[in-house]
Amino acid sequence: MITSKKALEIILNQSENFGTEEIPFIEATGRILKEEIVADRDFPPFNRVSMDGIAVSYAIFTSGQREFSIENMQAAGSEQVTLKHKENCIEAMTGAVLPKNTDAIIPYELVTIKDGKATVNLSEIKHLQNVHLQGKDRKTGDILIQKNTIISPAEIGVLATVGKSKVKVAKQPKILIISTGDELVEVSEIPLTHQIRRSNSYTLVALLERLHIQADTSHITDDKPLLKQKIEQFLTDYDVLLFSGAVSKGKFDFVPEVLDELGVKKLFHRVKQRPGKPFWFGHAVSLDISERNGNKFLNTNECHSERVKRSEESHTVVFAFPGNPVSTFVGCVKYFYPWYKKSMGIDSKNRQKAILAEDYFFKPELTYFLQVKLENNNGMLYATPITGNGSGDLANLADADAFLELPDDRNEFKKGEVFPLIKYR
Amino acid sequence: MITSKKALEIILNQSENFGTEEIPFIEATGRILKEEIVADRDFPPFNRVSMDGIAVSYAIFTSGQREFSIENMQAAGSEQVTLKHKENCIEAMTGAVLPKNTDAIIPYELVTIKDGKATVNLSEIKHLQNVHLQGKDRKTGDILIQKNTIISPAEIGVLATVGKSKVKVAKQPKILIISTGDELVEVSEIPLTHQIRRSNSYTLVALLERLHIQADTSHITDDKPLLKQKIEQFLTDYDVLLFSGAVSKGKFDFVPEVLDELGVKKLFHRVKQRPGKPFWFGHAVSLDISERNGNKFLNTNECHSERVKRSEESHTVVFAFPGNPVSTFVGCVKYFYPWYKKSMGIDSKNRQKAILAEDYFFKPELTYFLQVKLENNNGMLYATPITGNGSGDLANLADADAFLELPDDRNEFKKGEVFPLIKYR
Repeated sequence: MITSKKALEIILNQSENFGTEEIPFIEATGRILKEEIVADRDFPPFNRVSMDGIAVSYAIFTSGQREFSIENMQAAGSEQVTLKHKENCIEAMTGAVLPKNTDAIIPYELVTIKDGKATVNLSEIKHLQNVHLQGKDRKTGDILIQKNTIISPAEIGVLATVGKSKVKVAKQPKILIISTGDELVEVSEIPLTHQIRRSNSYTLVALLERLHIQADTSHITDDKPLLKQKIEQFLTDYDVLLFSGAVSKGKFDFVPEVLDELGVKKLFHRVKQRPGKPFWFGHAVSLDISERNGNKFLNTNECHSERVKRSEESHTVVFAFPGNPVSTFVGCVKYFYPWYKKSMGIDSKNRQKAILAEDYFFKPELTYFLQVKLENNNGMLYATPITGNGSGDLANLADADAFLELPDDRNEFKKGEVFPLIKYR
Repeated sequence: MITSKKALEIILNQSENFGTEEIPFIEATGRILKEEIVADRDFPPFNRVSMDGIAVSYAIFTSGQREFSIENMQAAGSEQVTLKHKENCIEAMTGAVLPKNTDAIIPYELVTIKDGKATVNLSEIKHLQNVHLQGKDRKTGDILIQKNTIISPAEIGVLATVGKSKVKVAKQPKILIISTGDELVEVSEIPLTHQIRRSNSYTLVALLERLHIQADTSHITDDKPLLKQKIEQFLTDYDVLLFSGAVSKGKFDFVPEVLDELGVKKLFHRVKQRPGKPFWFGHAVSLDISERNGNKFLNTNECHSERVKRSEESHTVVFAFPGNPVSTFVGCVKYFYPWYKKSMGIDSKNRQKAILAEDYFFKPELTYFLQVKLENNNGMLYATPITGNGSGDLANLADADAFLELPDDRNEFKKGEVFPLIKYR
């Protein structure tokens, strides 16, 4: 049995580059940028009026003149107007080009306008006041967004500004979520006494949606030949298989042996952690991935798409999580998420931490994923254990916000100590 | 000019209940739950085997017996099996019902099986060991998820478990984003020198997507009669109008006067803050909202939908943000988001805060939304100013993670002081 730390290390070694694709920028929120975004022009692109008011010649103002005939109007979106007589002024609007021959904007609030004349009651103004100079924010060619950034609404605005109507992002892996277990019935069914409803697949679907991945799902009964036949096809069709259940020592826990028989190499089975100990992880090398390129994801149609192939072969990575709902959940956020992020090129070295809000005792020396409620108290992040009814209680997940990762080298954890945090909401 | 605090108070007073609708649970992530979710049965629903192994009679084991003939098998998903001869055992799988007449599970790891007999080399076992007792986690009727919870993957799992294939959630307001300004061209176009690309609408679309709202958009040129005609229709069709631009003192800033002429009541105009000072906010009472019920949102088709009407009338709330990209962004996250959350019934009293990582000086006594980069350093959240090129620089938004809200009563802000935080990624 390996440690959780070692397990993560092995998993991260299996990260993979899935190539890039171009998609409409407005669909790119949550995706990972795969090109540098540079300024296509200066920002602002011209000397920009930044207050509504009158544009004057600073020299004329400084010479003592305080009354200006309004000669013209400079609207935003209009070509640059020229001040013909330097003793006059031009009304200029926010967002407009600074009129030629003017070099200061006096805001309307400080101006009295009557009979076509603007009178200013000020002793002084500043040269170029209320003018946002061309290129002050950014110069043509400046990098505005680095490659490998997760695109958020802020980046959407920048992409629009520089005219990136299509943008190059990391291609998503093609993922299948597979539940097993004859005790499972559909959500809409009324289970018999000895049955329960299928829930892990849906939890995983929702967890993957947060990464903007639209995963497929499949349920297979505890029938070994059927399982084998289906998984064989899945290994051809998908980049990642996420199993939930059938990985422990039960008579019907066929997943590890079927994977073995299909040539999927086990990299580990069982991790020194709770919950989620019987976690199985491995990978398969498939020589024919041509079918996978007929990718069914959202947002990829009509877009140029480029898949990275490593000498015509590609891995399928297999995460087989124990069927307990909290185990599956932990497995996804603790192992799959970092694998995904590394595969996408996201730098996640700044790990979140939180302060334990009360003493906690946990017996076996395993990495323990403690369910906690988070509170931001004056900029300090406190984690209060939600112990409820033990680590397998799914309803606890709804009461908590995160897992606090307690290390495997001791049993006592003191109030005020700081531990790594895995937030899930 | 009112303070930012007062502005928020006025806005929150305009929050509104948009009623509820039933949607498929798997589409409910990010939506706000509008019913209590209760346990439809005990959890576990039966005495559940929690380790793969053999089920034995505790009394027989305690009497000294260590060898048990395997009488039968209890699989997960099968009806309860009965141990016929109490000296025997039954192989039992994780997730299965505890076989009748047995009351302890000895894991396979501690059992040797040969010729149909299981031999145990243990001095003692515990009564009901490795049995997850019926109702231990939750009892039938227990509340598993409170009303007004934001549905996350954890809740999706619970909803599946209790068979809520459809779930009652808050109906989303119907929102239109309107940009104005003749200087704006489309993202795919090459702007002339005096033009810029339309970006705020897209930023707002992306910011609303984070709330799972699919907003409509419209661009109107700086033409007063056209603006008036369009807004009149929009007031009938939408619950919320979000404007960007044309709210300041410019000759073409028609939005406030057009809204006034259309009977939209101004609740304030101009807020003591930077950026975003010329922010205009108001509301209109419309008597005919029948058309709005032909709601175009995703996920509402085929679902029962119930709109709350207040004596056959309803408000349209109008947020008119200044056109500067950062102003619009701040306006949305500082004012629209809280209005939305209150309207949805979300309790957001626990405001996030962060610790200022370096001294900062800001001149006019206005609430200042400082762009910051966040770092979680041992559970403490530090905010480092990203001052870049001033508050209007959109590209700064891409470099920062959040706004730190500096109060309007002073100019000096010291390293180590704690201020409210508005995270936007």
